[in-house]
Amino acid sequence: MQGTQQPSTPAAYTPTDRTVPTRSPDRASYDRDLVHSILDEGYVCHLGFVRDGAPVVLPTLYGRVGDRLYVHGSTGSRPLRMTGQADPGLPVCLTVTHVDALILARSAFNHSMNYRSVVVHGVAHDVTDPDEKRAALDALVDHVVPGRARDSRPANKKELAATAVIRLDLNEVSAKLRTGGVHDEPEDLALPHWAGVVPLRKGYETPVADADLAPGTELPAYLAVL
Amino acid sequence: MQGTQQPSTPAAYTPTDRTVPTRSPDRASYDRDLVHSILDEGYVCHLGFVRDGAPVVLPTLYGRVGDRLYVHGSTGSRPLRMTGQADPGLPVCLTVTHVDALILARSAFNHSMNYRSVVVHGVAHDVTDPDEKRAALDALVDHVVPGRARDSRPANKKELAATAVIRLDLNEVSAKLRTGGVHDEPEDLALPHWAGVVPLRKGYETPVADADLAPGTELPAYLAVL
Repeated sequence: MQGTQQPSTPAAYTPTDRTVPTRSPDRASYDRDLVHSILDEGYVCHLGFVRDGAPVVLPTLYGRVGDRLYVHGSTGSRPLRMTGQADPGLPVCLTVTHVDALILARSAFNHSMNYRSVVVHGVAHDVTDPDEKRAALDALVDHVVPGRARDSRPANKKELAATAVIRLDLNEVSAKLRTGGVHDEPEDLALPHWAGVVPLRKGYETPVADADLAPGTELPAYLAVL
Repeated sequence: MQGTQQPSTPAAYTPTDRTVPTRSPDRASYDRDLVHSILDEGYVCHLGFVRDGAPVVLPTLYGRVGDRLYVHGSTGSRPLRMTGQADPGLPVCLTVTHVDALILARSAFNHSMNYRSVVVHGVAHDVTDPDEKRAALDALVDHVVPGRARDSRPANKKELAATAVIRLDLNEVSAKLRTGGVHDEPEDLALPHWAGVVPLRKGYETPVADADLAPGTELPAYLAVL
């Protein structure tokens, strides 16, 4: 989640044919910090790949270290099984979306949502380096709750062996977002339909401790503050 | 959203090779009502398709009428442009995911999430019948807020012409869900790390009315009750 930016790191990703939208190009952004912030706020991504010529889209956890995304899963799971020893790489599209508000317009046509999304195109590769794999797993846990990785028991050898991690570099990537209010046609403004913005609730409810918690274990600060 | 179930409608979808997961098959369900309820609770789906041999995953609005899903967009948008007059259909995978809670275990390995997802495989087709198209657009608006379609100005001819709608039948479809609490190894239970369930907030914040609302327009009941 840290994404320490080197002085030489460009502030924006370079647009490509795949990352320039055909619709509403004004909603697109290639700003690196914006892309990272949208990615860091998500809990699951939707990972797309091609199997037998057909698309497959699965929700999955992910983590970020700088300009690298990591997805993990069982070594028996389908997309991760498709990389493997020879590892030609797996072409993927990884998408993260936040719905921030419902936009209720007077006209059905102008109903919309405020959202922020990131779409990453690329080729995912197996992570085989043990140090990179451990760092990736820490990033995955810290992605769920920042600061959590160092307050949990790290993976042991057996668990590491059972976990496959793939890496996707942030290179061909774009953000798209809608913000603001209702855009109705001028001739519709006098219609008697309520119109406005309905923000969606965000964040946590009160955490519920496991019944078997070791005596004296308090709710950690990284949960209390969020 | 109504999904009036005919007496002849089976209570479950038939599993296929694509809808039986290789991992955690105990989390899979083919129950029609469960699938519908997960679909109806979502705001956006992630629609996957193949372009130039590579996967593309885009977030988009959708609606449901019985066992049919509808996705709409501009007639200029990419996936919808790929169906069209000849309409051989567009192979898609449509996925909807709700993250309900974060599961913080004592071990990094057993961190998880409670989630409910639906994955639909199929071939999407253009909707050309005007009545079906209008019903689909109503379903899309009612999907955002049930009851909203009849309290908004319906699409006019120009808007209808600018809107493409594609249909995806619910046939090859499965749900997958995790519920419950923390599952740590017995030898980890005494570790001093907090463990438990962190539920995510759901629902709306207070709606914010458009500044140009017609005088006397009240917040509708379908927004107040949610």
